[in-house]
Amino acid sequence: MPTSPTLSTARLVATAHDLADASGKVILKHFRKPIAIDNKASAGAFDPVTEADRAGERAIRKRLAVLHPDHGILGEEMGHAPGSAPYTWVIDPVDGTRAFITGMPLWGTLIGVTHEGKAEIGLMDQPYTRERIWSSAAATHWRSTDGRARRVHTVACPRLEDARLTTTSPDLFAKGHEAQVFARLRAQARLTRFGGDCYAYCLLAAGHIDIIVEAGLKSYDIVPLIPIIERAGGVVTNWAGGRAEEGGRILACGDPRLHEIALEITAGR
Amino acid sequence: MPTSPTLSTARLVATAHDLADASGKVILKHFRKPIAIDNKASAGAFDPVTEADRAGERAIRKRLAVLHPDHGILGEEMGHAPGSAPYTWVIDPVDGTRAFITGMPLWGTLIGVTHEGKAEIGLMDQPYTRERIWSSAAATHWRSTDGRARRVHTVACPRLEDARLTTTSPDLFAKGHEAQVFARLRAQARLTRFGGDCYAYCLLAAGHIDIIVEAGLKSYDIVPLIPIIERAGGVVTNWAGGRAEEGGRILACGDPRLHEIALEITAGR
Repeated sequence: MPTSPTLSTARLVATAHDLADASGKVILKHFRKPIAIDNKASAGAFDPVTEADRAGERAIRKRLAVLHPDHGILGEEMGHAPGSAPYTWVIDPVDGTRAFITGMPLWGTLIGVTHEGKAEIGLMDQPYTRERIWSSAAATHWRSTDGRARRVHTVACPRLEDARLTTTSPDLFAKGHEAQVFARLRAQARLTRFGGDCYAYCLLAAGHIDIIVEAGLKSYDIVPLIPIIERAGGVVTNWAGGRAEEGGRILACGDPRLHEIALEITAGR
Repeated sequence: MPTSPTLSTARLVATAHDLADASGKVILKHFRKPIAIDNKASAGAFDPVTEADRAGERAIRKRLAVLHPDHGILGEEMGHAPGSAPYTWVIDPVDGTRAFITGMPLWGTLIGVTHEGKAEIGLMDQPYTRERIWSSAAATHWRSTDGRARRVHTVACPRLEDARLTTTSPDLFAKGHEAQVFARLRAQARLTRFGGDCYAYCLLAAGHIDIIVEAGLKSYDIVPLIPIIERAGGVVTNWAGGRAEEGGRILACGDPRLHEIALEITAGR
């Protein structure tokens, strides 16, 4: 049966769950086990690639070839394979490689799909804690450690002085301008916490974090998170206020009013 | 039956589990729920106290009054209540309050006991992920999300260039000297990750982190973690190489050889 050119959101969500079931099983085998860490970055930088990453992406690509052979795939490990349909699956098998390597359960498997370039649905899977967060057509859902799923929403936080700010690492802000923007935001925010990767964006969608500011993100780091944030009531853009699908400098807020205020700082208005 | 002046390690460990069962139940009720955040620090600083902290400590003190009425208690929230026996329970109901507030499951309930001032046994409980780590007389044990417990050990890592370094926040190193020490260590380490609180020390005991360096810790932040690290094969001291029970500037390493090397930097030899 050929895949129809337009698919229901429910069908795409079902596929995302199927892919996460497949990847979770193989990735978990490598978590908190001795792993060989390669260095795929140029000399000086440190960008670990683990067997978990590769095994997870292989498992996802294998399932996708069965479920939607005409869809495109953009994965962290194996690059872009264009499809004939207007859908592209954007996947990062282990987002938060440093968290993974140090045994912290804040990494996640990111699975999203774009339709003509715009993020359509997204899913984040944390197989160790057995948590899974995903977007449906109109809502965001969180399946917790007890196996129960519920709808989640962002919370009201219109003022930066009241905001809980997180970012994965202060080292993300390499350039002078980026470091300056981060310093201004954190000086005004109520509290700052480091560490979190994709898991932090899901916590923002669920109302536990008010603002996340990061830089240097890849497309596959953020695409699956866009629908998760938007369907929960939040706003995620680049630092200039444009769509976030390309990655780069990212600003996410649970409260759209807070996003307006923070944008004044990130866009340097 | 009056408590005997010298208790077996097994008896103390059994009490620690009992206390963690009691605190976990009440603390978990407040995790990822709207909470009132007081500010117990002086103007300018931000030191949140949650109802979870207070409820957890109340639950622990109530059980201790039944199990060991003659033991002393030192808790984060309610201070020091000396006992007539040479044992003092050192407890932090929610270590990692910022992690707790932002919904990240890296906070933990710390329960330790000192005998004549020296850390005797320790336990860290993470009730959301259902993980628990504790020391017995001769080993460290990790109960995982699947309910199974196993012995854990630190791993060999004799060189700083190969070490995975973590610290809860770069903001811990307020003073010039402290910041300088941290900068020197991280410049040489293989990778640095921020965020982790007590959970990171347990990951070090289990071989996933090689070195942790922090400053400004209180006694109750570190006492319960000392036996967990030591019985797993690691070394934890202050920056001068002395016992860590007092808190302050802390250096923990999985490999004793790495600790010797790092001490050269922290002690400024």
